[in-house]
Amino acid sequence: MAEKRNGRQTVKIMNPVSIVSSASIVGPKEGQGPLRMYFDEIIEDELWGEKSWEKAESKLLRETFAKILNKGKKTPDEISYIIAGDLLNQCISAHFGLRESGIPVFGIYGACSTMTESMSLGAMLVDGGFADNVVCITSSHFCSAEKQFRFPLELGSQRPPTAQWTVTGAGGVMLSNQGTGPYIRYVTTGKIVDMGIKDANNMGGAMAPAAVDTIMTHFEDTGLQPEYYDLILTGDLGAVGSRICEELLADQGYDIKERFNDCGLMIYDRKKQDAHAGGSGCGCSATVFASYVYSEIQKGNLNNVLFIATGALLSTTSAQQGESIPCIAHAVSISRDFD
Amino acid sequence: MAEKRNGRQTVKIMNPVSIVSSASIVGPKEGQGPLRMYFDEIIEDELWGEKSWEKAESKLLRETFAKILNKGKKTPDEISYIIAGDLLNQCISAHFGLRESGIPVFGIYGACSTMTESMSLGAMLVDGGFADNVVCITSSHFCSAEKQFRFPLELGSQRPPTAQWTVTGAGGVMLSNQGTGPYIRYVTTGKIVDMGIKDANNMGGAMAPAAVDTIMTHFEDTGLQPEYYDLILTGDLGAVGSRICEELLADQGYDIKERFNDCGLMIYDRKKQDAHAGGSGCGCSATVFASYVYSEIQKGNLNNVLFIATGALLSTTSAQQGESIPCIAHAVSISRDFD
Repeated sequence: MAEKRNGRQTVKIMNPVSIVSSASIVGPKEGQGPLRMYFDEIIEDELWGEKSWEKAESKLLRETFAKILNKGKKTPDEISYIIAGDLLNQCISAHFGLRESGIPVFGIYGACSTMTESMSLGAMLVDGGFADNVVCITSSHFCSAEKQFRFPLELGSQRPPTAQWTVTGAGGVMLSNQGTGPYIRYVTTGKIVDMGIKDANNMGGAMAPAAVDTIMTHFEDTGLQPEYYDLILTGDLGAVGSRICEELLADQGYDIKERFNDCGLMIYDRKKQDAHAGGSGCGCSATVFASYVYSEIQKGNLNNVLFIATGALLSTTSAQQGESIPCIAHAVSISRDFD
Repeated sequence: MAEKRNGRQTVKIMNPVSIVSSASIVGPKEGQGPLRMYFDEIIEDELWGEKSWEKAESKLLRETFAKILNKGKKTPDEISYIIAGDLLNQCISAHFGLRESGIPVFGIYGACSTMTESMSLGAMLVDGGFADNVVCITSSHFCSAEKQFRFPLELGSQRPPTAQWTVTGAGGVMLSNQGTGPYIRYVTTGKIVDMGIKDANNMGGAMAPAAVDTIMTHFEDTGLQPEYYDLILTGDLGAVGSRICEELLADQGYDIKERFNDCGLMIYDRKKQDAHAGGSGCGCSATVFASYVYSEIQKGNLNNVLFIATGALLSTTSAQQGESIPCIAHAVSISRDFD
């Protein structure tokens, strides 16, 4: 078996791969939420001076990329790869946002699992000696997502309570073979899980089994127990999905209650802000991790974090053709110390 | 600098990473073309017993995946990762086609550069000791692509001579740390190149500068000369793009004429088959490589091949908003011998 493999879906990162910088830019609604102090920038309106929501989303990603470089004190020449993707058809936010970068790009698509998919690939490329510095970045935008996936905003369609609110924001990190942590220690890559759920207004419920599958596999592959982690953080299961996730894991003998949170529950004040079941979108886990969570690890308030972004791999076409929703979740294990 | 990096965009694969099997399934039109003897299966009609073109495309990918496993004599348990993507919104062909595989999946999006993007990532994951066997696979479908990107087929819209014909087909390979070649020796990852071309009916012309950029960078990074290769094979530049590519490279002092071909020019008989400027789509380079080219390397008729799939990273939304077309090209260098 390949030397770095631990069990069926996990690899151990053998060399120190540090997360040396992170950045996030969010929309006005996210900027009114409980994490507002942790974001690098809050834009004033959802167009940000652009002519379309798609162009605004590209700008979010482009400007966040620039901040990641600045904060990591690197020039574009020093970046071996960018690994990026987003929710828009053909991933135009990422590709248009990075077209002037002059840096080799791997485009990925993992729906809202994009942040940890890119960190997984990035960690392996750095660990394997293929890259010095890799930027992992993604974005989403409430208006461009609603327009593409649901209804015209102007229609004012009512949403069921299980629906989640797509985060307007871009977030990302720089991984490096230099640096002093936090370190990516394990990568557990998800398989596609489809439990037959067809309700595109309950993506959290659809994604929960994929998160459970990856989290359980992570514990089995590594021999670690939930207690090892200060925080087990899912991407965007929201209120419905995170409850299902916690219950399903408890049924399997993994009690994560004390250390479990979900980016979709953290980004909005669900009592004061109208976000239904919570945040979603690639930008949800990306901005929450790149702001508050990264900062808490750096301060030493969190030592070991299991970060599991979750993606619902449907399209409007698949939904219209009556298909169920295949989902995926990718986990990265992050530690303050390399030991 | 990271140990395996050669220059700005290239890594050298240090351990033997073999392409141990390949498979391709194509549509009826491709099955009437000059490579018909090399495909594993030719389907009789574009629905292949499914209720939609999208479901047929997923089936193409799923069945091709099964053939890659069979021909490589591996069970799903032995596959560390699948790296897959396609052209459909949210990559539903790949994700639905692989949802029963039970194997960790990295979804990627590189438009028609997907085949070499997946081989690039796969080669690094195997070389780095993260994976034993990786399946790299992609698909496209003329009908689902026309429906999504252009006009309803029923409309019978006329197409300009520069337009290319999206290949109906899926192709892929299995990479392994065991095996006796052919080997992936270098990976040159493209940066995004946008020369301002806005004509979505001339994608070959738009993509040619990206191919030129990656090919030139490959020679600069490795110190190799065009003469090293028996075949320099672009993905789907077609008649217009491949002429531009050859001319731009000649202007820069690289004469590739004697050893240059393009998958888009190889898959159809352009005199007898109505395919305008040639084939395109993720499935074009994937099926041509996985059939004829792989077979010629195995027979010893080709020793060293530079394979550069090219992608146009536009969407219908970006085109409608007047944006130009960002493009990318990823190259893998493949050799019969590991020396």
